[in-house]
Amino acid sequence: MPAIDPDRLLADLRRLRSIGARGKGVVRPAFSDKDMEARRWLKSQFEAAGLEASIDGVGNVIGRSRQAGRALLLGSHSDTQPTGGWLDGALGVVYALEVARALAADRATAALPVDVVSFQDEEARFVGCLGSRSLTGALTPEIEADAADKDGVRMADALRAAGLAAAPRARLSRERYLGFVEAHIEQGPTLEDSGKRIGVVTGIVGLRAIHFAFRGQQNHAGTTMMKTRRDASSALYELAHRINTEFPKAAAERTVWTMGRLRVEPNATSIVPGYADLDLQFRDASDAPLDALEEIAMRIAAEMNARGGVTIEATPSRAPIPPTKMDAGLRKHIEAAAERHAPGKWMRLPSGAFHDAGIVSAMLPSAMLFIPSIGGISHDFAEDSRDEDIVLGCQVLADAAASALQAR
Amino acid sequence: MPAIDPDRLLADLRRLRSIGARGKGVVRPAFSDKDMEARRWLKSQFEAAGLEASIDGVGNVIGRSRQAGRALLLGSHSDTQPTGGWLDGALGVVYALEVARALAADRATAALPVDVVSFQDEEARFVGCLGSRSLTGALTPEIEADAADKDGVRMADALRAAGLAAAPRARLSRERYLGFVEAHIEQGPTLEDSGKRIGVVTGIVGLRAIHFAFRGQQNHAGTTMMKTRRDASSALYELAHRINTEFPKAAAERTVWTMGRLRVEPNATSIVPGYADLDLQFRDASDAPLDALEEIAMRIAAEMNARGGVTIEATPSRAPIPPTKMDAGLRKHIEAAAERHAPGKWMRLPSGAFHDAGIVSAMLPSAMLFIPSIGGISHDFAEDSRDEDIVLGCQVLADAAASALQAR
Repeated sequence: MPAIDPDRLLADLRRLRSIGARGKGVVRPAFSDKDMEARRWLKSQFEAAGLEASIDGVGNVIGRSRQAGRALLLGSHSDTQPTGGWLDGALGVVYALEVARALAADRATAALPVDVVSFQDEEARFVGCLGSRSLTGALTPEIEADAADKDGVRMADALRAAGLAAAPRARLSRERYLGFVEAHIEQGPTLEDSGKRIGVVTGIVGLRAIHFAFRGQQNHAGTTMMKTRRDASSALYELAHRINTEFPKAAAERTVWTMGRLRVEPNATSIVPGYADLDLQFRDASDAPLDALEEIAMRIAAEMNARGGVTIEATPSRAPIPPTKMDAGLRKHIEAAAERHAPGKWMRLPSGAFHDAGIVSAMLPSAMLFIPSIGGISHDFAEDSRDEDIVLGCQVLADAAASALQAR
Repeated sequence: MPAIDPDRLLADLRRLRSIGARGKGVVRPAFSDKDMEARRWLKSQFEAAGLEASIDGVGNVIGRSRQAGRALLLGSHSDTQPTGGWLDGALGVVYALEVARALAADRATAALPVDVVSFQDEEARFVGCLGSRSLTGALTPEIEADAADKDGVRMADALRAAGLAAAPRARLSRERYLGFVEAHIEQGPTLEDSGKRIGVVTGIVGLRAIHFAFRGQQNHAGTTMMKTRRDASSALYELAHRINTEFPKAAAERTVWTMGRLRVEPNATSIVPGYADLDLQFRDASDAPLDALEEIAMRIAAEMNARGGVTIEATPSRAPIPPTKMDAGLRKHIEAAAERHAPGKWMRLPSGAFHDAGIVSAMLPSAMLFIPSIGGISHDFAEDSRDEDIVLGCQVLADAAASALQAR
């Protein structure tokens, strides 16, 4: 089995961390100067590893193997959250690079074709999973036309500023690949809490969302009697609390829901709000609990509407993310490699966060491998993993890649 | 009894409306150029009415009668909300001017001393009821030191820019006045809904506030399981909904409460909020229901704290406004005048909004008279009252002022 180089792996991860470093964290949002600098550095590393490397028209960095036969695609993303951690995405990209080098350096595996990718904008500055969408043909002109970041910068302008406007956009070929494997930090505490060092992802949870708009009547908070009020904020509190009370009855073990974004207008102490809105998001690895929760949320809104007063408009998201199963064949190779290197120290688990693998799986057999996040923390400067877990995860990925390619 | 001049009254109200007019509304916040222009115009009108007029060091416009004996102070404020109506405050100031002119024009009442005032910054650009606080000695250096508007402009700079820094600040004299009467639009729908044209205010409701801060743990909305979450927003929804559920049990007939201002951090769809805060405000004309509601709110917060998870810090406002009773003697004069001019068409009611009379009442016997607000609307460009109600209210005030002064 190919042996990875732990020192080279950690050194490359730290080198990538230094591009956009801010304290313990990294600020490298998609298409920023630091992001493009990181992508150019990755391209040079892919070339040094003997791959045919390019940056495509949306910023994906792709390193193609020169070996013949069906290839395995490995990788993740190198863009970060606005205040991101150093491993989210970067880990899977540098793992892929190191695995390509390790296989090439071992006579037994040197002929196995491994392609390496760093997808662009997984973190949704403009379009979540932009790079994997573009590579799989899932980026429509409609999605792209309106794309702008939260400061109003248009994606088309960002592409131009990054020098990508004229670069061709790559497409993955179904024929070239036997599959895709993405390694990632867990971003949650399940592995750590279970005392495990490797997670083999069974599937990526689906996500649905409902936007609630509450329309009442703005009024003076001193002179408007309670019985005549149509208070948008009170309706929001009631609906949100009822969702938190009723959802547990229909939720599965790992179902999660969040109402973390809201707005109340005019948001003043002495004014009865005339308008409010609230976003509900809920996730599960299966459709059944998602169906049940959506029904409950819509029923609560309908019941409150039937009472009169504040009007509630409940709009389910037009683009729900369906739950995705990871490929059973690729999973078996990862599980076998995990059991070889960490016997009894690995587990199967669903991914509660979304990943590029969720996009790629619509086109290619896909799988994921997790390593533990210290304290379950991510999307934060404090995000970290232990060096020995980082090294172990890469060795497991190298073994799994070699055995999957050898089994072609 | 003195007869007011309806055409002069309406013409002066419309002239004042033209200073800062914006559509049907008025934009004349305290110390703005338009506010100071309005104050200089009022001063000239006070002088034309035979009063000794000045603008004091905080912007109060004061017109002192040259007649001997204890005077009656009449007036309100001429500053507006950032997007204000044309009558809120302005009505009571122009009423006072018209009453002073009407009494002076009638031989039977010409010797009765009526002082007229337009208080500054009732609408709290810097300090709510700044002018009446200053005139009654309730403006402390501590209040003034930190005073700044929501854009960060300091009050001291606004005073300098308005040319007031060197002007002396006036003080009301307990000896000079037998009392103060403020006329105002109701700002609520009670008169209109009751088919009444004049309201005699029994008291100004007291106001208490509690600030709730919710501290949990910010986390990823996909990977953090429900049972380990410490979601600040869900705690806010529960507390707010419980307040709305439990307050009616202890509320009096006209008690009102509002939770119209809140904040959730970071306020993002996919992040479990780690922090939230919420302002609760509640008002009643008596202390007993306010005591009971404060106890309920603090108990709910304590019960939720005892469960663990999110920590709730509940901080009652350090400056509650106590309920104020209007002076029974002055009220009798207003009631008698209302019954003369609008028999059966007047009623007693508390004021749910706060007013300068609430400040002045700590020093002088004070009373208030309301006229109906169309649709109960105020603090809005759409605020309005019917001309015949405007005229009636001024005539009632003139009669009440004359009879109160004659009864000295």
